[in-house]
Amino acid sequence: MSPNASQLNINQQLVQDLLLGRWADERRDSRDRMKNPEYHKIEGQPYTEHRERTLGQLQALVDEHAVQKAFPSRFGGEDNHGGNIAGFSELVLGDPSMQIKAGVQWGLFGAAILHLGTEQHHEAWLPQIMDLSLPGAFAMTEIGHGSDVASLATTATYLPESDEFEIHTPFKAAWKEYLGNAALHGRAAVVFAQLITQGVNHGVHCFFVPIRDDNGEFLPGVGGEDDGVKGGLNGVDNGRLHFTHVRVPRTNLLNRYGNVDENGVYTSPIESPGRRFFTMLGTLVQGRVSLSMSSAVTSALALTGAITYGNQRRQFNASSDTEEEVLLDYQLHQRRLIDRLARTYADMFSANTLLEKFDEVFSGAADDDDNRQELETLAAAIKPMTTWNALDTLQEAREACGGAGFMAKNRFASLRADLDIYVTFEGDNNVLLQLVGKRLLTDFSKELSNMSVGVLSRFVADRASEAVVQRSGLRRVVQTVQDVGSERKSANWFKDPEVQRALLTDRVRVHVTEIGTAMMPVAKKSQAEQARVFNENQFQLIDAAKAQAVLLQWETFTEALDQVKDEDTRTVMTWLRDLFVLNEIERDLGWFIENGRISQQRARTLRGYTNRLAARLRPYAQDLVDSFGFEQDHLRMDVATGEEQVRQEEAAEYFRRLRADGNAPLDEKVLNARRKAEAKAARKAEAKAGKR
Amino acid sequence: MSPNASQLNINQQLVQDLLLGRWADERRDSRDRMKNPEYHKIEGQPYTEHRERTLGQLQALVDEHAVQKAFPSRFGGEDNHGGNIAGFSELVLGDPSMQIKAGVQWGLFGAAILHLGTEQHHEAWLPQIMDLSLPGAFAMTEIGHGSDVASLATTATYLPESDEFEIHTPFKAAWKEYLGNAALHGRAAVVFAQLITQGVNHGVHCFFVPIRDDNGEFLPGVGGEDDGVKGGLNGVDNGRLHFTHVRVPRTNLLNRYGNVDENGVYTSPIESPGRRFFTMLGTLVQGRVSLSMSSAVTSALALTGAITYGNQRRQFNASSDTEEEVLLDYQLHQRRLIDRLARTYADMFSANTLLEKFDEVFSGAADDDDNRQELETLAAAIKPMTTWNALDTLQEAREACGGAGFMAKNRFASLRADLDIYVTFEGDNNVLLQLVGKRLLTDFSKELSNMSVGVLSRFVADRASEAVVQRSGLRRVVQTVQDVGSERKSANWFKDPEVQRALLTDRVRVHVTEIGTAMMPVAKKSQAEQARVFNENQFQLIDAAKAQAVLLQWETFTEALDQVKDEDTRTVMTWLRDLFVLNEIERDLGWFIENGRISQQRARTLRGYTNRLAARLRPYAQDLVDSFGFEQDHLRMDVATGEEQVRQEEAAEYFRRLRADGNAPLDEKVLNARRKAEAKAARKAEAKAGKR
Repeated sequence: MSPNASQLNINQQLVQDLLLGRWADERRDSRDRMKNPEYHKIEGQPYTEHRERTLGQLQALVDEHAVQKAFPSRFGGEDNHGGNIAGFSELVLGDPSMQIKAGVQWGLFGAAILHLGTEQHHEAWLPQIMDLSLPGAFAMTEIGHGSDVASLATTATYLPESDEFEIHTPFKAAWKEYLGNAALHGRAAVVFAQLITQGVNHGVHCFFVPIRDDNGEFLPGVGGEDDGVKGGLNGVDNGRLHFTHVRVPRTNLLNRYGNVDENGVYTSPIESPGRRFFTMLGTLVQGRVSLSMSSAVTSALALTGAITYGNQRRQFNASSDTEEEVLLDYQLHQRRLIDRLARTYADMFSANTLLEKFDEVFSGAADDDDNRQELETLAAAIKPMTTWNALDTLQEAREACGGAGFMAKNRFASLRADLDIYVTFEGDNNVLLQLVGKRLLTDFSKELSNMSVGVLSRFVADRASEAVVQRSGLRRVVQTVQDVGSERKSANWFKDPEVQRALLTDRVRVHVTEIGTAMMPVAKKSQAEQARVFNENQFQLIDAAKAQAVLLQWETFTEALDQVKDEDTRTVMTWLRDLFVLNEIERDLGWFIENGRISQQRARTLRGYTNRLAARLRPYAQDLVDSFGFEQDHLRMDVATGEEQVRQEEAAEYFRRLRADGNAPLDEKVLNARRKAEAKAARKAEAKAGKR
Repeated sequence: MSPNASQLNINQQLVQDLLLGRWADERRDSRDRMKNPEYHKIEGQPYTEHRERTLGQLQALVDEHAVQKAFPSRFGGEDNHGGNIAGFSELVLGDPSMQIKAGVQWGLFGAAILHLGTEQHHEAWLPQIMDLSLPGAFAMTEIGHGSDVASLATTATYLPESDEFEIHTPFKAAWKEYLGNAALHGRAAVVFAQLITQGVNHGVHCFFVPIRDDNGEFLPGVGGEDDGVKGGLNGVDNGRLHFTHVRVPRTNLLNRYGNVDENGVYTSPIESPGRRFFTMLGTLVQGRVSLSMSSAVTSALALTGAITYGNQRRQFNASSDTEEEVLLDYQLHQRRLIDRLARTYADMFSANTLLEKFDEVFSGAADDDDNRQELETLAAAIKPMTTWNALDTLQEAREACGGAGFMAKNRFASLRADLDIYVTFEGDNNVLLQLVGKRLLTDFSKELSNMSVGVLSRFVADRASEAVVQRSGLRRVVQTVQDVGSERKSANWFKDPEVQRALLTDRVRVHVTEIGTAMMPVAKKSQAEQARVFNENQFQLIDAAKAQAVLLQWETFTEALDQVKDEDTRTVMTWLRDLFVLNEIERDLGWFIENGRISQQRARTLRGYTNRLAARLRPYAQDLVDSFGFEQDHLRMDVATGEEQVRQEEAAEYFRRLRADGNAPLDEKVLNARRKAEAKAARKAEAKAGKR
């Protein structure tokens, strides 16, 4: 088929450094640790045993001092927030259950104490949390309320007579649900509840609540259920908790953002209850950051397996009678895997950017309200993309390996099962995207409100006239007319980063403007009316948010390219970036044409161009996955070992020998053709004889 | 939000009859059986135990006389091919492992004996196969060859001296792989191998080969490995088999389509080796039929769970301060679930049509070459759509239920894991679609070859000029000009079945013509050159095949509508059909615009229309899933029990009582507002006092 000679030299080390980002050292340390079989998931292990194994792994991580980086140095930590998440995200290579249980213990339970508590709480509990002698649960989600934390129904009522809070779940929907460490191992929980004192509800706050005694029995008033088997992550003991008038000392309120004194008087450094709530929740953004990182790592792992296999496996002999085609030479296989390779690079770079922003805020280097909000929005955009992409990539990789992809020994299906929940926990992806969309709308309305009335009315008129122009099909297209019909020039246009940026930016802007414009007439109407119109635009709002996320990913990819000084490497990575963005434009091509951003005639050239881009990248696919830097102890997939190559060679050698020895049976088709020819010759001879 | 009053009455019984199709009785029988807990999957059961349980379930099915329908009546069967698959497809409701192991035993192992063997083979083995006293494996796939069966490398060489065949796997890539019943329970196997006699290879034939003795030990020359844990279907004992010079009597060749006599002379009723091969493989199409049916059933099950839950669950209070929104009132939730509901109806109807075609051929009612080929192509189109759709639907349903969707007790993730392999076994979906594409290309070239040379050159010229027209953007669009800009008229256009048919048909035609035209210049060139050009169009060929599959689904849906005599029911089902097709057009909108099939201005109205269609269907969503006819013993999902509704009511009642008793704490925000108002009043009073 196509010639696969690679003419450019990719500097793998350089690419790897770029992919691993600022905390490459921490990531490499963590990866080294993950080569130890002690940390590896045992496929098919019954879930009860798996849970105990996972707990043991957490203890081993403690013993190796591998998970304390984010905590204060005076407790033996390193105050290194970025490095902590970087190392943590690689734990997924061992067993996602271990990662998530570690995340529950230190990233949620411990982090709540650290970020929502104050000095006394740190002193009292952090050391035991860090060394795992106090395993805990993070009791936020309720059966009746997942993503809508503000509405949760568990109450914490201050009782001045005993200087205690009473934690209470008034009905079943208020039971805490899906909590890691709740079914078995948790001795305490940080419980989110509506803080009520002096008859006033001050909104959701967090309380430290012991739940089990030293024998593992529930304390009085505490009850729960085991969630049992799940779709994945069965090393984590998820469960439900409920509280019946359970009392804790007043000082168990984690009081950094809100305090109650012994008289029951509530005070907070943040006056607005809304801002206070979001500030408190904001401290928990690291879950989203680490899921983004881990998802990108897992996509990379899956593609390393599938592309290695696709480079060795042969199937169907299309172009030759004796040799079958290598899978990755098929156009379809290229589009299935190389497209996703491009996207995985984008996932990696955007997760790195998110991590840097996280560290900026949490290290205190740039911890202001604006930056915190930016971090929130970035996380809300990147986490959905990376987690969904991981599921899609794992699935395509598994399918690209056929039946082999389904075997546990190739891990695709197992990883997919474990990562499945990543798309709805730590913020349901669609809810997060709606957050992004609302933020975009807020920016839009700020822009509007900054305009004088005259400008505003002109702006609206402009929008209206634009709509009219679009309807009548006269809208000016972005490219110049003389490009029309020329495929080569079209490719130049599509690969121009300024064109790419304009297309991606415009898409966000138009979506948001359309929704904003639809919302304006009801801005002063009733809440119900506003909600109705908002809902009529919800599907588009999610599109807008996804478009924004892709733009952010494109920007981080493009920024990464700027750092590549090696020319060959930059060339190949630029193709990869182009494939990433053009693939996305291809997916949403209808929008770009119908809004006059891409002309019909140019659109017709796009598919051919992306096909060629994928083919151009094909010789470098192995280099590009090898650059992820995984070793066999990380991959642990038969398809990635090269055993397929060995089998192929053994088979080819067998047939070569057979032909050389003259022992190959004759194919019936060949025999038939030969007989036909003989019969024809015989007839000829007869005819000739007859003539004589 | 939107008013949800349903004004039309859906006749659920009528819809159910239509969905269950011609063999509704067999399906209902099978469903009744599947209510028995004995047949239910136990989530989290270790795979070794699961395997034994599944074997026991198969025996129970035998005892209930539930799986013998397809076999000849003289052996206690019913010669009922359609009814057999209909009943079989509902086994998925118990445990997909049971379905697949039953499929291995009776649909593959037994069916090979039945369809490829002759009288003597039927007498010798069918009774034992039917009563499970002879469990067997279907040894087709090899490690080195999945979908390319013609290339498999196991040999069966006739030895005249002993009147035997020698079965041999010459290298590791030729080992038989992923065979159900091979790891543990199989006593024999039907082995596909290259039949060699008198130095000629007559291609792939099938042989009956005993593999284990009565103690379960491998017979001499036979070996194997256990595939161990898989991504799903862990009740099936998949494994590998290899044969080292294993001899079987000559008469163990299943000789319906090819025989070897005691002198080693090969004869076949089908002269062409190619046609013979496809005829033999064609007898095994029932696997694809039953996977299509089962996938549609599983999608229906998942949506019953998710839509029931979406109709009860509330989250976020957008339009009211006291009441949260029901999930299914959100536009996004409607598009996520109701769109897939429409597609599931299409899956059901198209699978039914496939089953009828299958019965036509296998009952002998219309068993000719053309009809067999049509059956093959239909199966190759419908199986990929229904199986992929099932995975996508299960995933969306699981995500739509949030964390609850991940719990084993709601089964989404478990079913998804089990059905994962459906997309690559019994023919890899992409390989099947390529078959469909090639068939379309063959039809195209037949059309061409039927034209006289003059017509042909004109045809090609037409194509060229069409291309020119398209490039210059002057192509006449399908709709008339006066509709432009009117959304209401646009909706009329989109919902016109003739427009829908034209759009879907055109898409197939244009794709195929483009590929065919690209292939024409190399028609006389080398095999390698043809392969290269074919490969450059492979991605588009798959698109063409998918487009064809959607067209077929649309046709079966539309035919089903014709059978609905109840007006209200037909109205709602027509909306559903419209949503199915418009959703697909929305997904591929770029193609329709760039090829001038839909104008830019009309395209801009599509999203709004599909949103409104989904909203219009929303009040009927519950009726439409209830029409599937599942009972709680089939669903076995917490989300489908109505317990969410009970929790919601308990919570609402609690808050109502609190408000009524005057015990509700005051919200801090309300308090702040009240204080502000008081302060303002005080200032006013002061000012007033000051004035005095």
